[in-house]
Amino acid sequence: MVYGRNMKLSIVLSTQTAQFQAATFKGDLETNLASIASLGYEGVELAIRDPKLVDLDHLYELTCKYNLKVPAIGTGQAWGEEGLSFTDPDPNVRQAAIERIKSHIPVAARFEAIIIIGLIRGVVKPGVNDEQAMKWLIQALRECSEAAQPCGIRLALEPINRYETTLINNATQGLELIKRVGADNFGLLLDTFHMNIEESVIEESLRVCGRHIFHFHVADSNRWYPGAGHLNFGSIRETLTSIGYQGWISGEFLPKPDAKTAAQKSIIYLRQI
Amino acid sequence: MVYGRNMKLSIVLSTQTAQFQAATFKGDLETNLASIASLGYEGVELAIRDPKLVDLDHLYELTCKYNLKVPAIGTGQAWGEEGLSFTDPDPNVRQAAIERIKSHIPVAARFEAIIIIGLIRGVVKPGVNDEQAMKWLIQALRECSEAAQPCGIRLALEPINRYETTLINNATQGLELIKRVGADNFGLLLDTFHMNIEESVIEESLRVCGRHIFHFHVADSNRWYPGAGHLNFGSIRETLTSIGYQGWISGEFLPKPDAKTAAQKSIIYLRQI
Repeated sequence: MVYGRNMKLSIVLSTQTAQFQAATFKGDLETNLASIASLGYEGVELAIRDPKLVDLDHLYELTCKYNLKVPAIGTGQAWGEEGLSFTDPDPNVRQAAIERIKSHIPVAARFEAIIIIGLIRGVVKPGVNDEQAMKWLIQALRECSEAAQPCGIRLALEPINRYETTLINNATQGLELIKRVGADNFGLLLDTFHMNIEESVIEESLRVCGRHIFHFHVADSNRWYPGAGHLNFGSIRETLTSIGYQGWISGEFLPKPDAKTAAQKSIIYLRQI
Repeated sequence: MVYGRNMKLSIVLSTQTAQFQAATFKGDLETNLASIASLGYEGVELAIRDPKLVDLDHLYELTCKYNLKVPAIGTGQAWGEEGLSFTDPDPNVRQAAIERIKSHIPVAARFEAIIIIGLIRGVVKPGVNDEQAMKWLIQALRECSEAAQPCGIRLALEPINRYETTLINNATQGLELIKRVGADNFGLLLDTFHMNIEESVIEESLRVCGRHIFHFHVADSNRWYPGAGHLNFGSIRETLTSIGYQGWISGEFLPKPDAKTAAQKSIIYLRQI
């Protein structure tokens, strides 16, 4: 059983003030960790733009203080706020993106967390053809996966809907990428909001991805908390159970009507279905 | 019964080569009209960037030749390819957008078609506040509705998902706009692709909009033809029937795997459910 009393629920928290709208919690770190723990979450997914700006010891102590695990580290703010990407035409930008992801490895190791490859993969920019972008992406993912491997750290790429990127929108493309990267510690993060737009049948995509699903994001069809839209989370839960998914269910949704209400409604809803 | 043998099915056709990806048919006009009619469609929704560029008599004759009605005229290419909008900070651009929509009135009158207000409403541009944009939008819609009224022509604004515009994303906002515009010949065009992203419960939004629904677009959750995704068109059909919707069901979806296959699969699917 994935949901219910025994499932592992976390929620996204940005360690810096961020523009990214779907990071549910932003602002003072300790206040937010306390709030998340008090709602019953067992984990917190940390969105970290640049590990250099984070006091890792302090962060680790705080999560311990509130008894929160960190299942995954989000890295997309480096794209959103600095423009770093694996597929930029400028080789210096690509290299900086690779170095940035590598710099997350010690953080991930400390928390035994997965490193998320979201928007930092970039988009196919004007003047770049699709296959060139894919080659850069694969090269970067191989380099990062290889660097993470000795520490036992896994990377998970998130298929993201067509409006946010032109590279890897759905599960089929994600699985094809996994084949081409060819690293055991590289898999997928699937997100129900993106799946609602991109997957023909969400449950079928979950089954096809199977053991390649390293991490899982929940938001409802409108990117509000689960229960606020029309996704069938009962059926999604059953499918995750049936494929033996053992990972976390992490809430990444809009802070509406406000962060705390959304986080509370989500956990109540997910615990009861 | 809205779907089934008695429902009125149309499909979007661009009269000019257009960038807009979800216009199913593009290219040679007569070839496409023949193709659409041969598939069993009773109507064709025409996307027209600028009525000045269209030979109206010829267009009318062609649709008569293939026995196709024209339930609605799409106007969004004026935004996509010329940047015209009701909410541009430049008053000349706003005025040009209003004049463009007014220039569609004789076309709409010839076909007894609805004029669609899609992306030409614009987005809230930098330096413009939301309420100012809404005021410009309402003013433009009042002016256009008033000009269309003596010809018995109706205007329908399409709520469009958050990624494509910041103005009027959902049914609630659409109904609020209708109140503020206050014209009997101004209503809504609802589109299942956008509703999948924006409406909490699609059927509930249909019921709330009721008689204000002037026109209806179908595409599946992934913007492919109906049947290619996970929307429940049976339930949508039942709801449209229950609220007494008498308008057209118009296919606006991606030409995938190709235009003709998509159009064919859509009509077969919609006729059988």
